[in-house]
Amino acid sequence: MAIEAGQETQGGGRIRLGMVGGGEGAFIGGVHRMAARLDGQFELVAGALSSDPERAKASAAALGLAPDRSYGSFAEMAKREARLKDGIEAVAIVTPNHMHYPAAREFLKRGIHVICDKPLTSTMADAKKLAGLAQTSGALFVLTHNYTGYPMIRQAREMIAAGELGTIRLVQAEYPQDWLTERLEASGQKQADWRTDPQRSGAGGCVGDIGTHAYNLACFVSGLELEELSAELTTFVEGRRLDDNVQVMMRFRGGARGMLWASQVAPGNENGLRLRIYGEKGGLEWEQEQPNHLWFTPFGEPKRLITRGGAGAGAAAGRVTRVPAGHPEGYLEGFATIYQEAAHAIRAARAGKPSGPEVLYPGISEGLAGMAFIDACVRSSRANGRWIAL
Amino acid sequence: MAIEAGQETQGGGRIRLGMVGGGEGAFIGGVHRMAARLDGQFELVAGALSSDPERAKASAAALGLAPDRSYGSFAEMAKREARLKDGIEAVAIVTPNHMHYPAAREFLKRGIHVICDKPLTSTMADAKKLAGLAQTSGALFVLTHNYTGYPMIRQAREMIAAGELGTIRLVQAEYPQDWLTERLEASGQKQADWRTDPQRSGAGGCVGDIGTHAYNLACFVSGLELEELSAELTTFVEGRRLDDNVQVMMRFRGGARGMLWASQVAPGNENGLRLRIYGEKGGLEWEQEQPNHLWFTPFGEPKRLITRGGAGAGAAAGRVTRVPAGHPEGYLEGFATIYQEAAHAIRAARAGKPSGPEVLYPGISEGLAGMAFIDACVRSSRANGRWIAL
Amino acid sequence: MAIEAGQETQGGGRIRLGMVGGGEGAFIGGVHRMAARLDGQFELVAGALSSDPERAKASAAALGLAPDRSYGSFAEMAKREARLKDGIEAVAIVTPNHMHYPAAREFLKRGIHVICDKPLTSTMADAKKLAGLAQTSGALFVLTHNYTGYPMIRQAREMIAAGELGTIRLVQAEYPQDWLTERLEASGQKQADWRTDPQRSGAGGCVGDIGTHAYNLACFVSGLELEELSAELTTFVEGRRLDDNVQVMMRFRGGARGMLWASQVAPGNENGLRLRIYGEKGGLEWEQEQPNHLWFTPFGEPKRLITRGGAGAGAAAGRVTRVPAGHPEGYLEGFATIYQEAAHAIRAARAGKPSGPEVLYPGISEGLAGMAFIDACVRSSRANGRWIAL
Amino acid sequence: MAIEAGQETQGGGRIRLGMVGGGEGAFIGGVHRMAARLDGQFELVAGALSSDPERAKASAAALGLAPDRSYGSFAEMAKREARLKDGIEAVAIVTPNHMHYPAAREFLKRGIHVICDKPLTSTMADAKKLAGLAQTSGALFVLTHNYTGYPMIRQAREMIAAGELGTIRLVQAEYPQDWLTERLEASGQKQADWRTDPQRSGAGGCVGDIGTHAYNLACFVSGLELEELSAELTTFVEGRRLDDNVQVMMRFRGGARGMLWASQVAPGNENGLRLRIYGEKGGLEWEQEQPNHLWFTPFGEPKRLITRGGAGAGAAAGRVTRVPAGHPEGYLEGFATIYQEAAHAIRAARAGKPSGPEVLYPGISEGLAGMAFIDACVRSSRANGRWIAL
Repeated sequence: MAIEAGQETQGGGRIRLGMVGGGEGAFIGGVHRMAARLDGQFELVAGALSSDPERAKASAAALGLAPDRSYGSFAEMAKREARLKDGIEAVAIVTPNHMHYPAAREFLKRGIHVICDKPLTSTMADAKKLAGLAQTSGALFVLTHNYTGYPMIRQAREMIAAGELGTIRLVQAEYPQDWLTERLEASGQKQADWRTDPQRSGAGGCVGDIGTHAYNLACFVSGLELEELSAELTTFVEGRRLDDNVQVMMRFRGGARGMLWASQVAPGNENGLRLRIYGEKGGLEWEQEQPNHLWFTPFGEPKRLITRGGAGAGAAAGRVTRVPAGHPEGYLEGFATIYQEAAHAIRAARAGKPSGPEVLYPGISEGLAGMAFIDACVRSSRANGRWIAL
Repeated sequence: MAIEAGQETQGGGRIRLGMVGGGEGAFIGGVHRMAARLDGQFELVAGALSSDPERAKASAAALGLAPDRSYGSFAEMAKREARLKDGIEAVAIVTPNHMHYPAAREFLKRGIHVICDKPLTSTMADAKKLAGLAQTSGALFVLTHNYTGYPMIRQAREMIAAGELGTIRLVQAEYPQDWLTERLEASGQKQADWRTDPQRSGAGGCVGDIGTHAYNLACFVSGLELEELSAELTTFVEGRRLDDNVQVMMRFRGGARGMLWASQVAPGNENGLRLRIYGEKGGLEWEQEQPNHLWFTPFGEPKRLITRGGAGAGAAAGRVTRVPAGHPEGYLEGFATIYQEAAHAIRAARAGKPSGPEVLYPGISEGLAGMAFIDACVRSSRANGRWIAL
Repeated sequence: MAIEAGQETQGGGRIRLGMVGGGEGAFIGGVHRMAARLDGQFELVAGALSSDPERAKASAAALGLAPDRSYGSFAEMAKREARLKDGIEAVAIVTPNHMHYPAAREFLKRGIHVICDKPLTSTMADAKKLAGLAQTSGALFVLTHNYTGYPMIRQAREMIAAGELGTIRLVQAEYPQDWLTERLEASGQKQADWRTDPQRSGAGGCVGDIGTHAYNLACFVSGLELEELSAELTTFVEGRRLDDNVQVMMRFRGGARGMLWASQVAPGNENGLRLRIYGEKGGLEWEQEQPNHLWFTPFGEPKRLITRGGAGAGAAAGRVTRVPAGHPEGYLEGFATIYQEAAHAIRAARAGKPSGPEVLYPGISEGLAGMAFIDACVRSSRANGRWIAL
Repeated sequence: MAIEAGQETQGGGRIRLGMVGGGEGAFIGGVHRMAARLDGQFELVAGALSSDPERAKASAAALGLAPDRSYGSFAEMAKREARLKDGIEAVAIVTPNHMHYPAAREFLKRGIHVICDKPLTSTMADAKKLAGLAQTSGALFVLTHNYTGYPMIRQAREMIAAGELGTIRLVQAEYPQDWLTERLEASGQKQADWRTDPQRSGAGGCVGDIGTHAYNLACFVSGLELEELSAELTTFVEGRRLDDNVQVMMRFRGGARGMLWASQVAPGNENGLRLRIYGEKGGLEWEQEQPNHLWFTPFGEPKRLITRGGAGAGAAAGRVTRVPAGHPEGYLEGFATIYQEAAHAIRAARAGKPSGPEVLYPGISEGLAGMAFIDACVRSSRANGRWIAL
């Protein structure tokens, strides 16, 4: 069963989607909806869009949901939609982290597919329970580590898997931002508020919010597994309750080494996610803010710029490419690719078949890996940088 | 009536859309559909997707159109949809240029809004007839000069209008590509085939296909009007019937000068649309392949990089911005902004109101200007570069 | 006789150099001296550094010249040095343009080699007389079109000569600056003063000062000859007596086309000399402000970045490279290469031999070509852009 | 006593310079000579250019040294030159690291100024002895941490000292190269040979060769002092005897944090020295391969590009700037600035005066700091990354 980004609605019509969270004022909910719409594979038909009933209702109306499918709670939505003849087949969970587990549980146990924002949960205990549920449920679990959907990330992964870099030696990952340079949470700004709150975010601040993205991407592209890490988490802004800067040294199985830097207090950086991987034969360099470009540096030859859709881009990138080279695709397209692959898998599931090997969306195991990374960073940092095995 | 990109379906539900052209194998049809879906404002419900009946039917089925709303011709579609209670309110015309006029005519005269690909038509005569129709029809006419939808283009336009560059002196526009470096049309490649065919494309090849984009953008951003031009059109590839390289010198009303270069035979260039505008007090520089960045160069001060969503971006860019700074928006988002603004205007029209001044989609006058530009370039070039007044 | 940049003093000791112009407050004189010193091939021993006797004396003292070799005029210097046993072997002429001819004459006719700043002269008549003199004199004439000394420019030239781009179709040259955005000459600033004065600069302002550099470089690299041009010279700043913006359309022998833009009123541009050349098989792109990089764009393959000293750089670049890849060489090194090649030729001349074919400094014919370019631009612009044959 | 790059020979004539090492086939010797010549402040008059007598003699002849001032050993040179009336005033030591101390000792104890390549020595014991000598000798000791001579590095240092970034939080330094990706030393390549040999290089390979440069620059610019570090040194290439990759986590006095990565096995990197420093109010970013640019990122404002010689560049950069903005200065110019400042200090010493506070060349204390850094990295790495205080 082939897959192709930009492929539009197929037999059986659009997939009926619900959403938990994402009411007015939220950021990531709108992103999920745009991503779900772009390729025409999903139709949003139900929502528990806010824990505030008024806001939930208003948000549902603005989105054109039928009033009787705007719910006051995810539990209510799960229960009723599961009984409807045309109830939702999948749900997007876009709440703060601490709600991922309780929400996902209600849908998974009723066989409704879950598309969940990262990190997996706010605690390791929740993560393990969720993993257990996901394994026994017949439903799919998709984790939106969205950067894996960028075509040139697929290209990089394919090149490394094909041995074009030789044995990997070095993985340098970074994700600097600047939006928490000052104590924004003190202003009540919604995003800053929950992301710096241990109750809702978990034990990791910057490390959970963006460090996991960089870590996930490093593993996704390199194909390596982290063996142990030494971390230094810092909170620079006075009064902040979670880390806002993350430094990690990494030892991968097989001998590769790496460093990871994530920060939310580096002025001038917006979403500076960057990955550089070097092997015995060559290297690859990629930056999220110029995602259509991939530098390939074969040792002893001039550097080559591989572009999305251009000469040198292979099948893996091609499958998730929507427009020709030189017309930039961005964040929403990459995000939509996760939805596109989820749709593909859901249609395969409808037919009782597995999806093909080219479907690469992150799932529960990537979620657990991310939680283990956060946990190890927190423990290493508390132990003055002691190496922690994963 | 405020407008905001990313704003999702509003009162009255999605706008019912038809499409002419855009069947399997086409390029721009899929782009229009993604753009129409992104913000959830449109629902594709009918199509005359191909002049080949088999392909039309197959394409419609793949897109999930009801069989009775897949038509064999645009004329049939216009006639029947106009009579349906829930017939289409708008149509996207995504055919080769020579079909723009006959197709648009059928819909405009029935009061169905038209969203049409550029250039306006294949001949000046058609352009004038279409303009006449558009002025008398109650329906809206939207021309997808999509690059005007990029947020940083809106930013640049706003800054110039506010006088931040002082009186404009120079407009340097360019749009190099490389896809026609060899005689691709000889291979039967669909895009190359019609774009190099005077019958379907019109008298301009490269100048009509991308020269008009650069010209449109230069005028949109600078606010200037072209007074006269001197052009050199060249066909480098043997056997090609239209120009594949365009050089233009430009004199604008008020004394500004400019140059425009468009090429389809410049190896290494994908969609290198670039605009540089300089005034007495400062300059602006922008490149389509890095559309989230705008350089502002106030004379005597360090250059500043204004980013989409970042500090320094104003209201005009903000209205058409979907995701925060550092998460790149690209071609589809810019294209979708034209659809978003069309939707806004259509909803205003439903309510019998004009859309607000912040709605900036190109229309019939920009279409006529583009046709005049093509015509003047062709005439000047034939007259050995004689200056031609516009 | 091999040549290599960075090669230091050879048999016979340093070449004794004099200088005309370049006293305190001048710009280009100091550049020539640094260039002459870098490789240790020259020793400045005499000067007529200023027409102002006090300034001449003070400048000579600051440079450590013997008092009796600081002259009040170039004529006096030429006469006396020619008679000295250890008199100068070469002279650098770094005055405003109108003095190039009278100064060069005095030295050439006495068999003293001349290294002269560009453009050749301030009038075509002077240029022709100088060319006549240079042809009959036994002395060498070197014109410091210094950009030809950049290693990646040599690389580009070599690649084109070797056919790596196929037949050349397009030459896009530009050289924007911003330093004359306002009427700087009104402030008495020395550089602005003479460069905007027709008496000292000649009939071309911007076209003579930097347009000729861009033109020289385009021909040097492409190997093409200009057949005819159509130009538009503009003076944007009120009260200025010469052009400050230059637009040129170019037709080369053999069918290639090109455009050239030079400006001194483009805010944010420092020395934005840029060359892009495209052929049937590929292209090359280079920018003076990042001179160690050369983009090579073979059609249908990923772009490659060739770096000075890196893989992919060939013999022509290697000969003029001083330090390894990644340690940037700049303007002075490129300039010094002209001096290095002049030294090489002078040493060959001492031995009564011609210098080898790898010595590529510009000379009298490049000087005449530059003067013809200025003249044609001025005439074409006055004739409303009429095509002028060269 | 003011200083200015590009300032040429002053009263008292050129400074007489000797050189130890730097014979044919060496790399850094030629660099020192070009740097010494550029501003006309030095004259190379003596040398012990090689431990191989034949090569020493041939090299001296090629450089035009008088035969009786080409020595077979540095000891002989020091002894004899000290007795000559016009003997050398300063000596450049450009040997492998293990010879720095024995050579410097001979000159310092005779009051001859020393300009020495980095790192200071090959062992900590030698470093301490050298420091003792330098403190008691009346002669100056200059260490060529040449990157401190780049104008935009001076600019960055000045801005931080002036508080434009507020309290510094983060220092991210890196210096990737690729030239030792394969086992180049096995080929006998001279540079690779001694740099990977513990006897000649010292206990640090990559960390000593380039890690110290990055560390030196980080401290020079930030004004911070390192408190403790945790390091991981790796040798990727089989058979190599010293580290070829360096990862360091850094804690600075006052609470700033940092990371440092240096590598000689990162394909595609030439001399990728890069420094990013962030404070409470803004950040600065600089890359050695584009040294004329400095990004300034005040929090909450658009990024600004400060260029060498351009608007926004201050007095500290101006003092070491030779040519106007847009004409790139590179590695040799930065290196020459160390020589220029050494000359300034030597002339001041001639006059019995101290040099002014604007003379910033690195000296013995920077040398000791570098040795302590190498030592701490080696010890931390051997102790599995234990934090080591400096």
